[in-house]
Amino acid sequence: MAFTTSPTGTPLSPTPRTRLARMKERGSDNRDDLYEVLDTGLICYLGVVVDGAPMVLPTGYGRDGDTLYLHGSTGARSLRAAQEADVCVTVTHVDGIVLARSAIHHSVNYRSAVIYGRARLVTDEEERLTGLRVLTEQLAPGQWDYARRPNRKELAKTAVLALPLDEASVKIRRGDPIDDDEDYELPVWAGVLPLVTQWGTPVPDAALREGIDVPVHIGGRR
Amino acid sequence: MAFTTSPTGTPLSPTPRTRLARMKERGSDNRDDLYEVLDTGLICYLGVVVDGAPMVLPTGYGRDGDTLYLHGSTGARSLRAAQEADVCVTVTHVDGIVLARSAIHHSVNYRSAVIYGRARLVTDEEERLTGLRVLTEQLAPGQWDYARRPNRKELAKTAVLALPLDEASVKIRRGDPIDDDEDYELPVWAGVLPLVTQWGTPVPDAALREGIDVPVHIGGRR
Repeated sequence: MAFTTSPTGTPLSPTPRTRLARMKERGSDNRDDLYEVLDTGLICYLGVVVDGAPMVLPTGYGRDGDTLYLHGSTGARSLRAAQEADVCVTVTHVDGIVLARSAIHHSVNYRSAVIYGRARLVTDEEERLTGLRVLTEQLAPGQWDYARRPNRKELAKTAVLALPLDEASVKIRRGDPIDDDEDYELPVWAGVLPLVTQWGTPVPDAALREGIDVPVHIGGRR
Repeated sequence: MAFTTSPTGTPLSPTPRTRLARMKERGSDNRDDLYEVLDTGLICYLGVVVDGAPMVLPTGYGRDGDTLYLHGSTGARSLRAAQEADVCVTVTHVDGIVLARSAIHHSVNYRSAVIYGRARLVTDEEERLTGLRVLTEQLAPGQWDYARRPNRKELAKTAVLALPLDEASVKIRRGDPIDDDEDYELPVWAGVLPLVTQWGTPVPDAALREGIDVPVHIGGRR
């Protein structure tokens, strides 16, 4: 199953385009799964239509309750195309490669969220700051209170878009390959090769002033 | 810069939608960079237009020369929407989080390829097998020769699409944050937090026959 929402905290309920046509067992109607996929991601893939053709661009995002925020330079083509237009935002985590006994049943263990909706240009200054805060915190938790906040000039050059988490689908695949019955006898190894993503050691800016240590919220990030 | 191609091996040269409007220094016109981004990825984000609205779905892919292959069940909505239609395929690697002294200059170190074009439904049986081979090998190198190959029934249920690497843009960001001149004096740590992706230890299928060891092409994958 896949899903749309009503009030916060309620299960996602489907619309025609979020209802899974296939592999229904991979859908989740749990709103917490949607939050988990979004909150543990770093970038999303923003889909817009430009001159009738699709354009998919990787970009940052952040979530505040049931609103997803995107931002960009007021001059950016993708942001202009997304403004007050239908968009699709997709976030996916790849957790491992599923190695089956037959080529066709190879797959990926993943957690994925797809959100559809109209992207509203945020004009309220307080909401714009909320958007920029959650965008910054998504990429780098703790940095909104640590780094210099945006000034007037920067705010004037930045467009913030809001997308409600009203129409969303969540798909999750976990575990073993699913092979055809007769293939389980084949002398072929099958299983999952996990993909592990970790933070490395922080690399200081070449121009870093002396005597500034890596803060715990960066060096201790898990 | 960003880019389109002519013959294999030549630099990518721009079209209006692949020419970078901003951050031109992040573009690469090197076709080898395009190959590198594609060849080291696991999934792509396929953008299609359905009823005038964008849809972005994560999916597998593979490359043979200057052709990208996609596949899916003949019943899959996204595949039907992509068939003989304009699509956009995006592959991105996130290499690290760029921590600047100001919130607005936070960024991501990444390598990204965006490909535009019309997806052709492959009908030639030999080319269909080539597509499925490179798709399998992209996800799991060595498996095309190791696992059972697709049979007639499986082939009949599988659609293979081909997208030429004719119109593509490559963007790469590496290195330190770029802060405003006056911010370099701030007592704020700045630099890059690398994101490292590694293969974990293979997890055997619960139904694996006894006595089948993990092959080197899986267990030794780097």
